[in-house]
Amino acid sequence: MDERAALARVADLVPAAGDDAALLGDTVVTIDMLHDRTDFPAGTTRYTQGWRAVGASLSDVAAMGADATGAVAVYGAPDFDPDALEAFVRGARDVCERVGAEYVGGDLDDTAEFTTATTAVGATDTPVFRSGAEPGDAVCVTGDLGRSAAAIDAFRAGDHERGNDLFRFTPRVRAGVALAPHATAMMDSSDGLARSLHQLAEASDCGFSVDSAEIPVVEGVAFERAVTFGEDFELVCTLPPASVEQVETDVPLSVIGAVTEGGVRLDGEPLPDEGYTH
Amino acid sequence: MDERAALARVADLVPAAGDDAALLGDTVVTIDMLHDRTDFPAGTTRYTQGWRAVGASLSDVAAMGADATGAVAVYGAPDFDPDALEAFVRGARDVCERVGAEYVGGDLDDTAEFTTATTAVGATDTPVFRSGAEPGDAVCVTGDLGRSAAAIDAFRAGDHERGNDLFRFTPRVRAGVALAPHATAMMDSSDGLARSLHQLAEASDCGFSVDSAEIPVVEGVAFERAVTFGEDFELVCTLPPASVEQVETDVPLSVIGAVTEGGVRLDGEPLPDEGYTH
Repeated sequence: MDERAALARVADLVPAAGDDAALLGDTVVTIDMLHDRTDFPAGTTRYTQGWRAVGASLSDVAAMGADATGAVAVYGAPDFDPDALEAFVRGARDVCERVGAEYVGGDLDDTAEFTTATTAVGATDTPVFRSGAEPGDAVCVTGDLGRSAAAIDAFRAGDHERGNDLFRFTPRVRAGVALAPHATAMMDSSDGLARSLHQLAEASDCGFSVDSAEIPVVEGVAFERAVTFGEDFELVCTLPPASVEQVETDVPLSVIGAVTEGGVRLDGEPLPDEGYTH
Repeated sequence: MDERAALARVADLVPAAGDDAALLGDTVVTIDMLHDRTDFPAGTTRYTQGWRAVGASLSDVAAMGADATGAVAVYGAPDFDPDALEAFVRGARDVCERVGAEYVGGDLDDTAEFTTATTAVGATDTPVFRSGAEPGDAVCVTGDLGRSAAAIDAFRAGDHERGNDLFRFTPRVRAGVALAPHATAMMDSSDGLARSLHQLAEASDCGFSVDSAEIPVVEGVAFERAVTFGEDFELVCTLPPASVEQVETDVPLSVIGAVTEGGVRLDGEPLPDEGYTH
């Protein structure tokens, strides 16, 4: 049974689940697990791992429109090499600093494979869910897609420095907070834009019509790969067209299309629900 | 390098760490990772694993004197057997319900060994740290020690039902909230009472003198084992003697000794810093 089918099975047990992070009053919380085999190509440094793992959780907080307040992490490894641990913690701390959050520690665990679990916490009075998109809304994306695909290419080509640089993304916390009062639905692009649109469509009971010419892609990455590869941490959101001009984000916000009554279409053709299955 | 030495190395990088949970404003947050090989004896059900893993995080929130508001978990397994996943989620949900918290979901991960990461979140205006014990304070413990040692004995003897029952403890959230306005220092007993006393002594720069006759031990478990085995989730705390009578906890609170100027002693003899190293 794959992840999505398994999650559907327990959905009734956990009605609060289904967004990038969970809401507890005005606090949002999220948890993720990453490990060597599936998430970190050879050449990824421990510093980058700490940054990226905690960054992924901060991105989930951003996707709720919440301001990230802090994060914690578990460092699971076969041995506790002090230099490796210190590098991981520095990465975790630096990505928190980048978005104005505090890294407040965590735990160690003795695991066969390098494994990290991360939690980020945020605060918001105006949480944004996946479920509020309305036909006529504009659909927007922050930054450029394909950054992680480019990183994988760099790692494969042996350019570990560039791979690590690209892997250390800035979680879109500032943009999420700026978008929150306006956005009708939001999530991050960690499963790829195509899958994100399908998930928003399902949660909001709507469709999307997007235009390939408007979708911002990292230089050197093929369009289709940028749209389906995933592991990027940009925000995908919907907002009333009149709000687009009012929002001031610290990164470019591209209008890539519009919310429709049903169906997810790219340049008028059905866009398959393909992407990264975590 | 063992866990404690490794943590000491990064202590300067994360000054906020060092208690059972981290404080972010009036929110507390904690993260833990547990896995088959080290944490769950053969015979532990997925339901019990969900209960116990989330319970361990709720206990960390309780140890800060905070009211637990919610929890999330990652379920990492080689395959997503839907019955096993559902049992885990039911256990996670039920332990949250037991303490008035909400289980709000989490994530799945594809791991070689069954691994779970759990986070609990709580709220408090009066957080209790490990560092406030003062000579003359009473040192107290909730409930009975040795419950997990008894569970291990039951699993080894093939009485899996009793082992599972004992493994599903009640996190001391209610007691922690009741103690918070009075307690000068607090932590849970997950590393064993002996180690907890040493950790409180180090954080508070004090000593302890405890009396074996006053230490409550689960029937059938040898005293020394109950005091050092750990993996129990009772609260160990200090409070002014005058407060002891004023606190109303939902479980028995035993005064087991007093805070002193230095040295950790049991019946007048040095109590070694022995316990469970996670």
